[in-house]
Amino acid sequence: MDINRIAGPLKGRFYLATGRHTGCDREPFQIIGLYMAETDYKTLRDNVRNLIEEKAYPDLERLIGELHEADLADLLEHLEEDERLTVFRILTPERAGEVLIEISPPIQESLTHELDDQALSQILNELDSDDATDIFSHLSPKRAENIIGLVQPAVAEELQKLVGYETDTAGGIMALEFVSVSANSTIREAIENIRKKREEVENLYYVWAVDDSGKLAGVVSIKDLVLEPRDRKIRDIMNPDVISVDVNTDQEVVARIVKQYDLTHIPVVNGQHKLIGRITHDDIIDVIEEEANEDISLMGGVIDQEIAEESALKISRARLPWLLLGLFGGLLSALVIKNFQGSIEKILALSFFIPVIMAMGGNTGTQAATVVIRGLATGDISIVRTGKRLLTELRVALINGILCGILFGLVVAFWLSDPHLGVGVGVSLITIILFSGSFGAFVPFVLKKFNIDPALAAGPFITTSNDILGLLIYLSIITQFLMAA
Amino acid sequence: MDINRIAGPLKGRFYLATGRHTGCDREPFQIIGLYMAETDYKTLRDNVRNLIEEKAYPDLERLIGELHEADLADLLEHLEEDERLTVFRILTPERAGEVLIEISPPIQESLTHELDDQALSQILNELDSDDATDIFSHLSPKRAENIIGLVQPAVAEELQKLVGYETDTAGGIMALEFVSVSANSTIREAIENIRKKREEVENLYYVWAVDDSGKLAGVVSIKDLVLEPRDRKIRDIMNPDVISVDVNTDQEVVARIVKQYDLTHIPVVNGQHKLIGRITHDDIIDVIEEEANEDISLMGGVIDQEIAEESALKISRARLPWLLLGLFGGLLSALVIKNFQGSIEKILALSFFIPVIMAMGGNTGTQAATVVIRGLATGDISIVRTGKRLLTELRVALINGILCGILFGLVVAFWLSDPHLGVGVGVSLITIILFSGSFGAFVPFVLKKFNIDPALAAGPFITTSNDILGLLIYLSIITQFLMAA
Repeated sequence: MDINRIAGPLKGRFYLATGRHTGCDREPFQIIGLYMAETDYKTLRDNVRNLIEEKAYPDLERLIGELHEADLADLLEHLEEDERLTVFRILTPERAGEVLIEISPPIQESLTHELDDQALSQILNELDSDDATDIFSHLSPKRAENIIGLVQPAVAEELQKLVGYETDTAGGIMALEFVSVSANSTIREAIENIRKKREEVENLYYVWAVDDSGKLAGVVSIKDLVLEPRDRKIRDIMNPDVISVDVNTDQEVVARIVKQYDLTHIPVVNGQHKLIGRITHDDIIDVIEEEANEDISLMGGVIDQEIAEESALKISRARLPWLLLGLFGGLLSALVIKNFQGSIEKILALSFFIPVIMAMGGNTGTQAATVVIRGLATGDISIVRTGKRLLTELRVALINGILCGILFGLVVAFWLSDPHLGVGVGVSLITIILFSGSFGAFVPFVLKKFNIDPALAAGPFITTSNDILGLLIYLSIITQFLMAA
Repeated sequence: MDINRIAGPLKGRFYLATGRHTGCDREPFQIIGLYMAETDYKTLRDNVRNLIEEKAYPDLERLIGELHEADLADLLEHLEEDERLTVFRILTPERAGEVLIEISPPIQESLTHELDDQALSQILNELDSDDATDIFSHLSPKRAENIIGLVQPAVAEELQKLVGYETDTAGGIMALEFVSVSANSTIREAIENIRKKREEVENLYYVWAVDDSGKLAGVVSIKDLVLEPRDRKIRDIMNPDVISVDVNTDQEVVARIVKQYDLTHIPVVNGQHKLIGRITHDDIIDVIEEEANEDISLMGGVIDQEIAEESALKISRARLPWLLLGLFGGLLSALVIKNFQGSIEKILALSFFIPVIMAMGGNTGTQAATVVIRGLATGDISIVRTGKRLLTELRVALINGILCGILFGLVVAFWLSDPHLGVGVGVSLITIILFSGSFGAFVPFVLKKFNIDPALAAGPFITTSNDILGLLIYLSIITQFLMAA
């Protein structure tokens, strides 16, 4: 079987992403950048499936040998469980590790589960300490113990050290592979240090300088190591204003620091300001995406659900609490309406407008909450200016409330030929938009103040309370109107 | 006035973020990392305000001279417009530029607007080409023309080149400052190249190798330049598998590539595969946050609103269309209910449960849509597996629908002592959850297929249609039940 035939349909399409170019013409390409034409996964997946079925393992090995680890991880996600294992077992421990860390958590866990302890410990031996810890920390206590006995002693030590940190802190995402030199050494000595760690530290852009007691003292870019004479002292070329984070800093704060100061790597220090680890840009990108996922999930009422989860039962369990909350809230709303039964019996049309009231209150509140939540998350809105923001939101709600209220009132007045009812529902709507707009903007600030994730404010919890309060306002106002009439 | 007194309350707090350490003890710190204790902005801001009011400009200059540009940008965002200008005008053009690019867009634009052409062109002279273009592209055509005449000819050329690319493509975010060398040159020659561009290219981690016709041929890490003998050829140490993007690639795709392959920088090539620019990790982080913002905004129904926008009128205008859509949808719902007026007159209690129906349909649909939207955005869910995902979601909806339906039916049956009605509303709810769960999961895939942002599927547009359809299902089923009774 010819690899070119297998890979053929995939080749030309990925030119833009790969850009592998040998000088005379555009061939050969690697098959990387598959996500660029997502539907072509299908072709690749089908080819892999055929090879597995035909037990054409040498061909399979050659085909997957062409793939970048990140793409191979994507491919595995697209296969069935038994196929995944077949492909995964072909890989060398080093490559298997690189693939494993790129796979989304639920699938990663099921793969890890299928591997025997020997295979898994070989993989952990090859990985960077932060990635190894990620996988290690998801093992059962029993299995973790076995694995610790099987990996290399140095790896065991690193794992035990890193697994002790909270997962969402700097310690939980840092790696132990970095290059540091004494501030008193020369560039020549620093370069020797880099040479020693050449294999261990793959991407190296900065060398950190420490003083005699191991405290972080400065940072030197590799560019300066190249350009400056080799007998210059590190102390003389380093930048002493190095930005670092404490090992217990929340990962969200770490991401904010990295983003704020446009860093690629950030050193991690302990309470004595000793250099103990480093966090790289790709980990930061993961944190930023993770935090955005968390916000979006909370807003959508799907807290704690892994996006790549495949088990319907697990998904149901994650979502059910929010649905039950919604059901409970809905029943409270029903109670409110029942309480105003008399008004509705008198004018049945009042029931027609329940959806308008709910939708408008919900939308206004969510709009205000969304902007404040996101602004607080990205730092574009600050808690210092709470008052100013609330005032702005109140103005916004007033403008939009008056416009929508008048429009709604006019429509109802003409539709049902009842100007009095029109005025009543219009005034109700203005009140509700004013209320839910301010409420939507206010709640995220309050949550933030109490260190609760503000994103909750756009989720089912708040929309549910908004519904109840909105209906209460609507029916109270309109009943007053009826009694006045 | 003593700077230490001014900065005093800020100092100790920022130790963790700054980590500036000179060897013997922890002092002095820079005041950086202000966001770590957000409420302390207030102290700093108040100090700055006092200095402005007292016209103590030398003190003001010294105080802001201590701040990192990114923190200074945050400070400016916390000041009133005239104060901002006062502080901004103290800065040198180079520092002013670094601050300006860190400020959120609406405030950046108002600041730019206040500067005279001379000052603005001096700032643009100092900035990296991508940042200069960002600011330049927001100017009015008339002003842009003036500025082109005032900046250095080389800068003018760069601006005119970069402003021609679509803002959300690789060309729109790339910079022209990069180091490339001929693949046939030696390491020594490459280092000379770096030396020449030392000032221009601040963060340098990779050197790109090109062939004789300027086509991208490989990549060399600075680490290898340091470690390898200086007379080796670049061709012999470069990695020819360099991942690049075409200048017209969408920025979201660029971000996905960078994330997928854990890159720090990515080279940009033109149609002839010639190297024409570079995109750095900080720009990628911005893109990822921007795309998350877009998704969250669409879900919250606040499309096109800048988070940091301060004008109530502009905010209202951005939100009103979605509210009007909601109002229109609500009126359609009203029409549906009016259509079933007879049933409600017969059993008024039917109106009580309108909120339950709306809330449960909305929540189920949003939950499913949120997971699919986010999965599609991060690549955790792929369009290839649409069928499988829909099947999973259908199962989830079935499980949760049956549980909630039975519970709801029981509550209604006991509350109103009407088992028949209980069965009716229970069956309605199961049907609605089944429908809105599948609908919520399905719509994002459809939108994605037609290249529309899937995030729209969790916004007001879909929840509104869900409301209408949910009420239609509920009232139809329940009316059938009443007629059967």
